[in-house]
Amino acid sequence: MTKTLSVLGATGSVGTSTLKVIAHSPERYEVDALVAGSNVAGLAQACRETGAKRAVIGDSTKFEALKDALSDTDVEVSAGREAVLEVARRKVDVLVSAMVGATGLEPTVAGIKAGSNIALANKETMVCAGSLVCALAEKHGSKLLPMDSEHNAIFQVFEQDEPKAVDKVILTASGGPFRTSTLDEMRVATPERALKHPNWSMGQRITIDSASMVNKGLELIEAYHLFPVEPDQLDVLVHPQSIVHGMVRYCDGSLLAHMSVPDMCGPIAHCLSYPTRKSAPVAELDLGMIGRLDFEKPDLSRFPALSLARHVMALGDGAGTVFNAADEVAVDAFLRGHIGFLQIPELLEDVLNRLQAENRLDCSDQLEEILQLDQMARRVANEVIGKMAA
Amino acid sequence: MTKTLSVLGATGSVGTSTLKVIAHSPERYEVDALVAGSNVAGLAQACRETGAKRAVIGDSTKFEALKDALSDTDVEVSAGREAVLEVARRKVDVLVSAMVGATGLEPTVAGIKAGSNIALANKETMVCAGSLVCALAEKHGSKLLPMDSEHNAIFQVFEQDEPKAVDKVILTASGGPFRTSTLDEMRVATPERALKHPNWSMGQRITIDSASMVNKGLELIEAYHLFPVEPDQLDVLVHPQSIVHGMVRYCDGSLLAHMSVPDMCGPIAHCLSYPTRKSAPVAELDLGMIGRLDFEKPDLSRFPALSLARHVMALGDGAGTVFNAADEVAVDAFLRGHIGFLQIPELLEDVLNRLQAENRLDCSDQLEEILQLDQMARRVANEVIGKMAA
Repeated sequence: MTKTLSVLGATGSVGTSTLKVIAHSPERYEVDALVAGSNVAGLAQACRETGAKRAVIGDSTKFEALKDALSDTDVEVSAGREAVLEVARRKVDVLVSAMVGATGLEPTVAGIKAGSNIALANKETMVCAGSLVCALAEKHGSKLLPMDSEHNAIFQVFEQDEPKAVDKVILTASGGPFRTSTLDEMRVATPERALKHPNWSMGQRITIDSASMVNKGLELIEAYHLFPVEPDQLDVLVHPQSIVHGMVRYCDGSLLAHMSVPDMCGPIAHCLSYPTRKSAPVAELDLGMIGRLDFEKPDLSRFPALSLARHVMALGDGAGTVFNAADEVAVDAFLRGHIGFLQIPELLEDVLNRLQAENRLDCSDQLEEILQLDQMARRVANEVIGKMAA
Repeated sequence: MTKTLSVLGATGSVGTSTLKVIAHSPERYEVDALVAGSNVAGLAQACRETGAKRAVIGDSTKFEALKDALSDTDVEVSAGREAVLEVARRKVDVLVSAMVGATGLEPTVAGIKAGSNIALANKETMVCAGSLVCALAEKHGSKLLPMDSEHNAIFQVFEQDEPKAVDKVILTASGGPFRTSTLDEMRVATPERALKHPNWSMGQRITIDSASMVNKGLELIEAYHLFPVEPDQLDVLVHPQSIVHGMVRYCDGSLLAHMSVPDMCGPIAHCLSYPTRKSAPVAELDLGMIGRLDFEKPDLSRFPALSLARHVMALGDGAGTVFNAADEVAVDAFLRGHIGFLQIPELLEDVLNRLQAENRLDCSDQLEEILQLDQMARRVANEVIGKMAA
């Protein structure tokens, strides 16, 4: 049985791993469209390797370059935002949603409305519009398959027939490069230092978000939408080896955990094969070799983003949009050296408080309003940064 | 929905925990019969606490004592082997098979033939007669629910719809009191030392079997029958904290693990509630508090019983019967000071080799033949011990 696939964000970190999973078992997949933001060479190569029918580049100035790069093929080439949305609207068995940031929200929603199942790596879809997206998925018969390693892990051990038996849903966190650092060390941390993630090789933003645990905060919010649990049933546990990715504790004392070597090909393969399991290009986990797994409660004083995320869950989708947008701006400012590392969560809290004080967080379940709020949060974040830097 | 239950071995270690699970939620269970070997006072008290309708004592000389102890109740009292088999033949929703040793085999088979689901703690049922028992269970529509902590753990994470996706089934072993001991220390180990299990409070035989890892060998054989896997898919991993009880690794790189505090009430509650999950009298697992889980490959030179068990799996059910029977005799001899600790696996190997050389292991799938082979193995084991001691 061949499955049809499209990939939004085909040249990013998750996209590249997705192509690796497809290459491992090309007979299982038929690639409809590959979408990239601006990486023409990467996209063209991916199209050749997968035999994709369509290539879409988000940056419309790259249209000619992409057309040239694929001129000797039958690949249908298009460019620009509308072209991205157009292929997202084509129904496939699985639409891989792996664009980075809030820009991935609209095409993901387009895929849901088309009734495609969504392999979801784009956190913002859930963080900014969880309620809307879940309602749409239900309405259009689109199954949301969590592809983040933590949520995919939880998905694998969450007994969907028994939601009432679930006691806790536990996301693990590597603790990032500052797990054992002091507050003073974190205050003066450079981008170079923050970009050194101990276990995962990922994009820049998610790596900084791991260091600040904003990423884990975003994941908490995502988990809250993906699984039928209350905020106080969600826990974070620091686990430096990144072998256990997620756990569900049940009312009978059982805790089911998902483990694997840290490799995104695992959760991707799980989503693409779902509901069956097929072999994947992932190394075998050998616990006897690894020898030891450690766990510790997160230090909320050094990682205030975790507490902030709980506050965001209580406030609702609008707060998620603001939390995420302000963080994109904050990470960018940190990477440019405009703000210090500990100012990232400070900025998030400040922007949230300002917009809450102005009653801007109660946005309705309309995608347009969510995107407007996203823009507003970015403006406010930039204003606050201007004052911080001054 | 009330479930009807009977308990074979109600006053033993597993039986007592079963009563604790029933007492936690008395509204869920209706106890038909409680069966004990010889503990009159324990059985009488258990009948009062659970409101059991029938009490059976295996030792027929205790009939009058049990009758007296329950004279002021409506509990129907009987005694002797035939009486045990008679209540085992009464169909209930779940028959808890928790008698110790090969003596539990016949009543368990009686329960299977009655079509009761079996919550199986009696290892010998599978070790001595796995093929027969599985065939009977299939024929009579009896579901076998593994109640050993390891097998129950595996049962919880073994995706029954996807047996072909299973790569490895991993049983954990605490390593027992001699995990870090040298061969010389083990050679002179006393019963007192061997009875000091680090994590579990269990009966004497199983505690000694844990120290020698014969228990893990028996569990490997049991797992081979309970799950649709080949012998080389079964692995043992030493895990001193006894928090992870069992794991299944899949072809997509996912390893699903079951964890809990070491408390038999967990697996018992799981079997009694199956296929739903209900709250159980088990402490919550807090990995943040525990902090650390260790894993190591077992040392086959110090624990030859593991290799022997693989040999037994290759030889078939008859070898399982001999392995188990010889071990019961060996443990008894060790506890009486007749043989040394390292002579336990030596004895097992010796008895197996003798009976294999005499072509005695190819017993048919008849319960009578299995029981005869069991007796023969005991005789041979005692003969060998006589020579060892001499």
